[in-house]
Formats: sequence, structure tokens, C-alpha cells
Amino acid sequence: MQKVKINSDRLLNDLYELRKIGGRDKGVVRPAFSEADMRARSWLKQRFEDAHLDTKIDGIGNVMGRSKKLGPTILLGSHSDTQPEGGWLDGALGVIYGLEAARALHENSETNHLSVDVVSWQDEESNFLSCLGSRSWCGTLNSELEKQATSREGERLDDALRRVGLDNTPRLEIEESRYLGYLEAHIEQGCYLEEASEKIGIVTAIVGIRGLIISFKGEQNHAGTTTMKRRKDAATAMFETAYRINTQFPRLARETTVWTLGNAVVEPGASSIVPGAAELTLQFRDQDESILDALEQEVKKIVEDIRSRGEISVDVRPGREVIRPSRMDKDFQIHLEKSAEEITPNAWRYMPSAAGHDPMVIHEKIPCAMLFIPSIKGISHNFDEDSHEEDIILGCEVLTSAVASILLSN
Amino acid sequence: MQKVKINSDRLLNDLYELRKIGGRDKGVVRPAFSEADMRARSWLKQRFEDAHLDTKIDGIGNVMGRSKKLGPTILLGSHSDTQPEGGWLDGALGVIYGLEAARALHENSETNHLSVDVVSWQDEESNFLSCLGSRSWCGTLNSELEKQATSREGERLDDALRRVGLDNTPRLEIEESRYLGYLEAHIEQGCYLEEASEKIGIVTAIVGIRGLIISFKGEQNHAGTTTMKRRKDAATAMFETAYRINTQFPRLARETTVWTLGNAVVEPGASSIVPGAAELTLQFRDQDESILDALEQEVKKIVEDIRSRGEISVDVRPGREVIRPSRMDKDFQIHLEKSAEEITPNAWRYMPSAAGHDPMVIHEKIPCAMLFIPSIKGISHNFDEDSHEEDIILGCEVLTSAVASILLSN
Repeated sequence: MQKVKINSDRLLNDLYELRKIGGRDKGVVRPAFSEADMRARSWLKQRFEDAHLDTKIDGIGNVMGRSKKLGPTILLGSHSDTQPEGGWLDGALGVIYGLEAARALHENSETNHLSVDVVSWQDEESNFLSCLGSRSWCGTLNSELEKQATSREGERLDDALRRVGLDNTPRLEIEESRYLGYLEAHIEQGCYLEEASEKIGIVTAIVGIRGLIISFKGEQNHAGTTTMKRRKDAATAMFETAYRINTQFPRLARETTVWTLGNAVVEPGASSIVPGAAELTLQFRDQDESILDALEQEVKKIVEDIRSRGEISVDVRPGREVIRPSRMDKDFQIHLEKSAEEITPNAWRYMPSAAGHDPMVIHEKIPCAMLFIPSIKGISHNFDEDSHEEDIILGCEVLTSAVASILLSN
Repeated sequence: MQKVKINSDRLLNDLYELRKIGGRDKGVVRPAFSEADMRARSWLKQRFEDAHLDTKIDGIGNVMGRSKKLGPTILLGSHSDTQPEGGWLDGALGVIYGLEAARALHENSETNHLSVDVVSWQDEESNFLSCLGSRSWCGTLNSELEKQATSREGERLDDALRRVGLDNTPRLEIEESRYLGYLEAHIEQGCYLEEASEKIGIVTAIVGIRGLIISFKGEQNHAGTTTMKRRKDAATAMFETAYRINTQFPRLARETTVWTLGNAVVEPGASSIVPGAAELTLQFRDQDESILDALEQEVKKIVEDIRSRGEISVDVRPGREVIRPSRMDKDFQIHLEKSAEEITPNAWRYMPSAAGHDPMVIHEKIPCAMLFIPSIKGISHNFDEDSHEEDIILGCEVLTSAVASILLSN
């Protein structure tokens, strides 16, 4: 495996330029279809064109730069929209890595012939609809969902498209035969790499996510005159369920499994009334369906136990659309591993992605892979999100060399 | 001890008449200073006068009927205001019992000379301020609290007094030297008597009430990328605290102790965010300070244990004004016991009152006692609240004979 030289100053300068568009404090405010988002997309279009890519902003806002070269193509990129209070690297890093990789491969005589497209997807961060741009490109954008999509501020998607002048622009669609696959780099948004002083994470899978809402119904009553024996206290059952989930799940989970009881509501919620109803919100994530199954089974066991006492009725229903684990391409992972081992020996690992990304959508059409670089303190979705410059540069080198390796071996 | 004959038809008829004023479904809507409440007070005033009592509605709405007889006096009564959706007997029972006792004692030649006053206190049910009428009468109504008092519907107390024409009416004040004490009968609002097929509860004390708010502060974080090991989940600490309270308190409590975790709030309360803050509302009641102390100590032990792990900061603060247990007068209890044993042998018990009542206020000035009759299924603060006619009659007989016994022995 041969290391491809990148231009690290150009890489960092582009990231800093993009950071200014919608910049606030140390972070960025650039939600999908905001004025800043569209300005960033125009700036990217110019940047892609300067890199000899045929570039369009399509009818859903994706910025797609196509290589003019022949042969099998790799698509690189990520998203340039941000959370309402976003970090400067979440999304932007992967887009500028793609751009720099394309430029670096073009400038190197041994890789000058390789075909790399670069993309910035629209609305990965779910201002209107999560992974809107990649869903549209893959042809898996549900038209009902699209019709209902409104932004966090209440704007309808079709109004937004009209406002930014994209309502009559065609939407690009995937040409599956063109691509060997899609690679995306991203900040880790967690602490594994930093804590282990490692530089590269090679993503094995994007975790699956399941959500359950557990509802308890008992009997609302006077908190003074109702004896403990006669109570049918919905909150007591909820607290026990929550406690048992938190104490039982560790037996079934592995190091990277996560679960969250993100909300609890007690009805009527008054200090002098025995609660008649309560509701618990559970979410759990893992890269293996078998672990997700085991956790869900455990919840059902706990609930069945409480239900069987005959005092409280308990209902368990899905709290969200189930997201199945997305396996990343094995062959791509091996190229990334070789590149990482060459550039930063023994300082990389295989790991799941605990957060969602566009490859969840895209891997259903073409092979995908992801590469992580360390996040300082794991902070993300926050103005304080940051990574060290040397880690940013190294990550781009690993990605670029891996892309060369994939294309050269095909 | 001699049983005093009461007129049970008259007793029931008065209860049924009063039930019609503000009646809805099987219950009553007669919150303090509502049109129905004031109509009920005028009706009571007439009823008291018909019973040869000098009667006034005072400047806070208390209906006070004074005996014209000489000698030591017993005050009997309760309240005629109701919860927003009240039962027909809560309060009304004790007022009409007082009226019937005064009439029955007057009609019986052996007790005709005994002095019994009858009262209906205003706003026991806390539409503006709990036990407003008895506090005013006892001179313990805090003038700041009175100024701030507004009804559930937002009316200020002084506006309400003006609206019902009481703003220039004097407020009656306790003459401590006039009274041997105050006795109040009430429905149990619980199930002890019914479950034991008993007819009379002699109240030993009105329970003390304490409230604690337990606040947890951790670190809000991403529910995907934050590993379980790195989390400082405020809700997890709250669930453990709640579970441990519910499993530890039974060791320290006795049969009549009650505790309620009436509310739980998780911040920010989103399925994908590790909670950064959480708050638990605890209330507990017992007739003994020592048990209340032990429970509060246990909470502090649990909290200290969680705090000592160094991940979550926990704060415990009072959730309400502490209500200390109110001991009922021993001598009165003995008279009630003799009367109950005479009239319904072996079918009575000593018991605490788990709900609050005007004697909590009045016992600071003069001796107090309370008598309970069975509630059907323990239902209260509800249109369905009810008691059997024979239990209503029997309770009035026990009270009347006990009052005769107290007055004749003084």
C-alpha cells in the first residue's frame, strides 16, 4: 500500500473557510435550507468545480461533483448542513476530506486517472427529514413523509424548496453501475479513540436503534387515606421497571451497547395523589440484532413479571421506527485497515458507529464504509465540538490512500 | 353512659337537602365562596336558627350557631365547602351531625341544659387557602398568605369576599374560656373500617405530613455516542433512589404509614438524550414524629450513598410546609370510646386520620377530637363518595352520646 500525499494546508483552509459560513462562537449554525446552508452549498459547488468536478446542486439540495475520468468510481462525502447549534466538523469534515482526496489523487501521477466523485448530502441532521438528500438520491424517499416534512421552525419542505429556488430543479438519482461504493469520514462523536490514544476508527457497522414506550396504568387515589396495601401506584411500577432495566441490561450488553431511559412521565404528577398512570421512554442501540433482541426480550420479561402481580396494567409499544444495524463493506474495511496501519501503526481500531449517518441509507444500494477520527472529549452536537489539527490531517491521509488502494485494485 | 336518642329521619333529610345545593351526579360542586357554597351557608344559618342557636355568617364565611344556654360549651361541626368535584358527605356530615346533636340534646330532658355550638368552617378544602375559616377563628391566619390567596379559578380572596358581600362583616374570634373543646365527625375516606366491618373510628391523631423534593444533576449527553461507562445520567440515579425508597421504607413504616412518589420529571426528556437533570417528589405521612424522622433519615442515607459515587450531585429540599402530627384529646377519646362501645360493641377502633382536617388548626387553641364513620370502598374527593345510611345514623348517635357524656361530667 502506497501513501498518497495530500495538501494539508489546503485541507485545513477549506475547513476553516466553510466554518465561517454560519459560524457562531466556536461552532456553526447551518441547518438544512437556511440561508447559511445554501451559501455553503454554493461555495462548495465552486470548490468542487475548481477541483475539475462537474458539479450540480440538485432539486433536493445535494451538491454532487462528478469526476470526468473513466472507470469505476468511488463516491466520497458527507453533509454540510448542521444541527441548530452544530459543531464545525460534524459533516463538514467528510465533505472537505472528499474534496481534498479528489484533488490529491488528481495531482499524483500514479493516481491521476482514478475517478472520484464528491458529494454534500442535504439535511442529514433532520431539520426537515433525516438523511433527506441521500434518501432522495437512493430513490427511497417516501413521498408521504416528504409531503408531511416540516422544519424545526415549522416551514414545509416544498415551501423551503421554492424559497431557495430549487422547486424546478431535477433531483439526481443514483447510477448504481457507476460506483464501487461510498466512503464517508466523520468525527467519532465519542471517546473511544481519544481515551485509547488512537487516531483512526474503522466502522464495522452503524448501530441499530430500537425504542420502546412502556406505559403503566394503575389507580389514581388520595395520598393520605389510601393505605400502601391498597394502592395501585403506576409510578412505583415504573420506577421498579426502570431500575430493573438499568441493573439487568449490563448482563446482556457488551462494551459498546448503549441504552437510555430518556424520559419518564407521571400522571397526574401531584405530590398528594397516588399516580394513576406513568410512562417510560427507552431507547437502545447495538450493531448486532441478536443483542437488540435480547434486550427487548428482557424488557418483556420484566414487564410480564410486574403485570403478573395483577395490580398494574403495562403496555409496551414501539417508540420509534426501528433502525436495523447497517453493516459496512468488509473489503473497504480491509483497505482502510491497511491504510491506517501504514500511516499510524497500532493506533487504529475497528468500532461501531453509535450515531446515525447517511451510509445507513446508501448501504442498501451500494457498498459503504466509514472512517472516524478522534473527537476532543467526545463532545458533539455542540458549539464546542473539536478535533486536533494533526488528527484531521492524518484522517484525510488514511482515507485518500485507502481510496487509491480500492480503485487501484479494481 | 346513657344513649341520647337522635331523630334519624331529620338527620338524613337535612343531609339530603344540603346535598341538593350544588349537587351534580351523585356528588356536589360547592367550592368555597361559589354561589352554591354561599347558598348552602344561608340554608345552614336558617337551620341553625330553627334549632335555637344564635347564628351568624362571619366575615370569612364561617357559619357559627351559638347556644343560648349557660355553662361549659362544646363546639361541634365541620365544613360545608367541597372539592371542585366533591362527595356529598365530606364536611357536610360533620356539620349536620353537629346540628342534629344540638337538637337531640335540646329535646332530651336530661340533656336539655347542655350548651352546644355548631359551626360550618369556610374553605377547609383549600379553594383559596386550606382551613381558611378555622385559621381566621383561631387567630392564626397569616395576613401575608391571606393577601396572596387566590382561588383555583384565579379570583383573589378579597375580591371574593366583596363579591359575596362579606367584606364589611366582622370576623368571629375564638373565646377560649367558653369551650371545653371541639369535636368533628367525618367520613373515614379510607378502607380500614369497612374492611374490618367496624362502624366507628376514634381518631388518635391527624397525621403529620412532610414533603421532600430530590433533585439530581448529571451531564446531558448524546444517547448514541456516550458509552454507559462515561454517562452521568441523572434519571438513572433518580430511578435507583425511587426504587430504594419504595423497597426500604416498609422496614421503617407501620401499617398506617403512607408515602407517595407523586411526581418525577426528567430533563430534557428526549428519547435520544442522556438526561442531565431529574427531580423526584416525595411525600410521607404518619402520626408519629419518630417514624417521620426515620423515613427522612433513610432518604438522606440513600441520597448520600448515590452522592458518594461522585457522578451525580443530589440535592434534597423541603417540598412543602411541614405539618406536625396533631394529637387528639385523650379525655374526649375516652368518652367517644365509651359511647361507641355502648352503641356498637367491639365494632370500633382507635386510628389516625391520614387526611387533614380543621382540628389540625383548632387543637392548638382548645382540645379536639374526631370520629370517623365508614366510607364505601374508601372513595373520597369524588362524586361517587358514599356511606351506608345505617352507618350515618349510628355515627351521629355515638357522637351525640359522647358529647352528652363530656358535658355531663364537667
